[in-house]
Amino acid sequence: MPQTPAVEIITIGDELLYGQVIDTNSAWMGQELGKIGLRIRQISSVSDRAEEIVRALDEARQRAQVVLMTGGLGPTKDDLTKHVLAHYFHSELALYEPSLRDVEAIFARFNRPMLEVNRQQAFLPTACTPLRNTVGTAPGMWFDGEDGVVFVSMPGVPFEMKHLMATHVLPKLQQHFQVPPIEHAVLQTVGQGESFLAEQIADWEAQLPPNMKLAYLPYLGGVRLRLTATDDGQPDLRGRLEAQLPAVRALLGPYLFAEGEINLETALGAMLQHRGLTIGTAESCTGGTIAQRLTSVAGSSAYFQGSVVAYANDVKIRQLEVSPDTLESYGAVSEQTVREMAEGLRRTLGVDVAVATSGIAGPGGGSDEKPVGTFWLAYADAHQTVARKVSFNRGRQLNIEYISTVALNLVRQHLPAAN
Amino acid sequence: MPQTPAVEIITIGDELLYGQVIDTNSAWMGQELGKIGLRIRQISSVSDRAEEIVRALDEARQRAQVVLMTGGLGPTKDDLTKHVLAHYFHSELALYEPSLRDVEAIFARFNRPMLEVNRQQAFLPTACTPLRNTVGTAPGMWFDGEDGVVFVSMPGVPFEMKHLMATHVLPKLQQHFQVPPIEHAVLQTVGQGESFLAEQIADWEAQLPPNMKLAYLPYLGGVRLRLTATDDGQPDLRGRLEAQLPAVRALLGPYLFAEGEINLETALGAMLQHRGLTIGTAESCTGGTIAQRLTSVAGSSAYFQGSVVAYANDVKIRQLEVSPDTLESYGAVSEQTVREMAEGLRRTLGVDVAVATSGIAGPGGGSDEKPVGTFWLAYADAHQTVARKVSFNRGRQLNIEYISTVALNLVRQHLPAAN
Repeated sequence: MPQTPAVEIITIGDELLYGQVIDTNSAWMGQELGKIGLRIRQISSVSDRAEEIVRALDEARQRAQVVLMTGGLGPTKDDLTKHVLAHYFHSELALYEPSLRDVEAIFARFNRPMLEVNRQQAFLPTACTPLRNTVGTAPGMWFDGEDGVVFVSMPGVPFEMKHLMATHVLPKLQQHFQVPPIEHAVLQTVGQGESFLAEQIADWEAQLPPNMKLAYLPYLGGVRLRLTATDDGQPDLRGRLEAQLPAVRALLGPYLFAEGEINLETALGAMLQHRGLTIGTAESCTGGTIAQRLTSVAGSSAYFQGSVVAYANDVKIRQLEVSPDTLESYGAVSEQTVREMAEGLRRTLGVDVAVATSGIAGPGGGSDEKPVGTFWLAYADAHQTVARKVSFNRGRQLNIEYISTVALNLVRQHLPAAN
Repeated sequence: MPQTPAVEIITIGDELLYGQVIDTNSAWMGQELGKIGLRIRQISSVSDRAEEIVRALDEARQRAQVVLMTGGLGPTKDDLTKHVLAHYFHSELALYEPSLRDVEAIFARFNRPMLEVNRQQAFLPTACTPLRNTVGTAPGMWFDGEDGVVFVSMPGVPFEMKHLMATHVLPKLQQHFQVPPIEHAVLQTVGQGESFLAEQIADWEAQLPPNMKLAYLPYLGGVRLRLTATDDGQPDLRGRLEAQLPAVRALLGPYLFAEGEINLETALGAMLQHRGLTIGTAESCTGGTIAQRLTSVAGSSAYFQGSVVAYANDVKIRQLEVSPDTLESYGAVSEQTVREMAEGLRRTLGVDVAVATSGIAGPGGGSDEKPVGTFWLAYADAHQTVARKVSFNRGRQLNIEYISTVALNLVRQHLPAAN
């Protein structure tokens, strides 16, 4: 088997060094390269100055066989990458007709006049293999260095970079380096931490063959598990990977909510749609975040009907039919109140399923009896109402995010079984 | 004046290279260093392996006078940074009592038992000046290298890094390198793009003295402007910076919503509170995002009462009193509907000010007459109702984010003047 090449990423742009832009491209590239079995050795961010770019290229080629660059391909005069690369590979810029047509098509689609600077974007170093970009004006460039090192330049705009990676760069890398086969399965869990899950599946993990490894990828409220099978020279890698899954599925039990790259709100949406149920939310402390997450899913109008964000007690009383006596006797942050909020929303909005939240997200509003980080949640459908108390305090922003995840999971756990 | 030192950042951790974690620390550090007049030359992310960390240190000290490291200081065995640095500076680990007391205090505060691995975190290289961390268990370390290069190691947990930067690292850097004074003013604008604003203030920008520079920092829906004054040897830099502001404030006019590091939802909240007005939102296409943004502000319960997220027409009719005839005649995405939504919310929730949205966020749901990216917004208070149409299509997620910004700005523009 050929040695798998080490990859380096160079992100180019003063805006990265000034902190005006957070580099999200590198993490995405790290994930995608990992899926085809390639590993990033180093990520470097450098300025738009030619000598800095050249220095970074010289250093990276010492360490890696693949150097992926993003940024500096825009139409303005501080975008130098293309000129630097032409010079670095002793080559001239020449018009590449197919890319000119791509640029023209982009402007035609948005019905905007094309400028000379945009035409210039179709001029590419003659030393490169152009990578056509059909979603933006800057083509990618692939260079085969004299020492066998591959250099690829892509735009810094995330969706253009992702398009070029998926359609050109990843397939070409696999082919060029004859990257050995690799297979993955992703198991999405929610509601338990890493150490609990690890204990739960320890025996299963211990019996995995040497070419299969499990990665724990925690997020706020749960853990993604990625099982990776690398080439062992034997046939049917995919089949053998999948043969491991039934056992771990059984062990993960109620914490497993989906397989593949699917988030909780998307998985829950599919469950609702499959059951023909509608949903609404009655939110106090989460302030609309559960609704925002449910409606972030394209097509969510098929099951999401609406929400009442009830910060003020008056809104809880008038829009959710919570009893003033309940608020008076137990307070807004109580089991009784969230139960009435969920049940009230089912009536007032006429939805099948409702979820309600009330709590003290902080930093203010806490008391000795109910400190910041005290939360009540309730789920209601035609058959039952279920309430749950949660204590969690890692600052307002994370509290809201966490409680919205707990709420979505509460719905998932209690939805009636599909017919 | 002494030469200002170049800074390099090294972020340490396999999770960065695998793409499991997005590096947000570097951007924050770039911004904060920029405020004291220091510039990052390069950012490098490397793995947890000792030889990779040493190589990165060796390379960085060639290029920079300050090397800031984050990560690899946790209590587990793959956290090597401290051991690598002890060796790199020919030094031993020894117990640093004040840090032990800090670690003990952290565990006491959270009422959790302290483990031996946590006690080990108070052992530091004798060659370093310890930087006490009172918000986490890993102290920072400051090393004065033989060649005059300063090395600083901090935890990778963002709030611990920020705490150490603010309380120790930035002040020590200013003092150590006698960094010349620098002053900033930030002008927050919304509702216009970079090129329009640049034209608007071109004459003002041209008359700025040579030691003052304006940076345009665009975001979705607006631009932040940062005016920076660097030392020119003359007194009262702050006063001279502030003397430039009245003219640009006048030119920016209605697009300027705040000065300093304040976001739109926070600024709007302060305006509402100052006027003693309550607010609510009636959201269709934005699905609760405006409510989520308004309630992300600590203390927002003083003015935010509640929202109705009305995806389904039934909810628009029942909860917002939109007339079925209006929906029938004009459709849900229309001026008439958003006007009725905003006015209906004012009545049903009893709020002073309401904002409503309805549109086609995509990817589905468009038609020839109302393509994806068609949005209607309305503002209503006791005196007036104002509606606005917006066309914007950059994908569902960005569409929702952009429209929520337009909605917040619509409220800001139409709030009655303060008494």
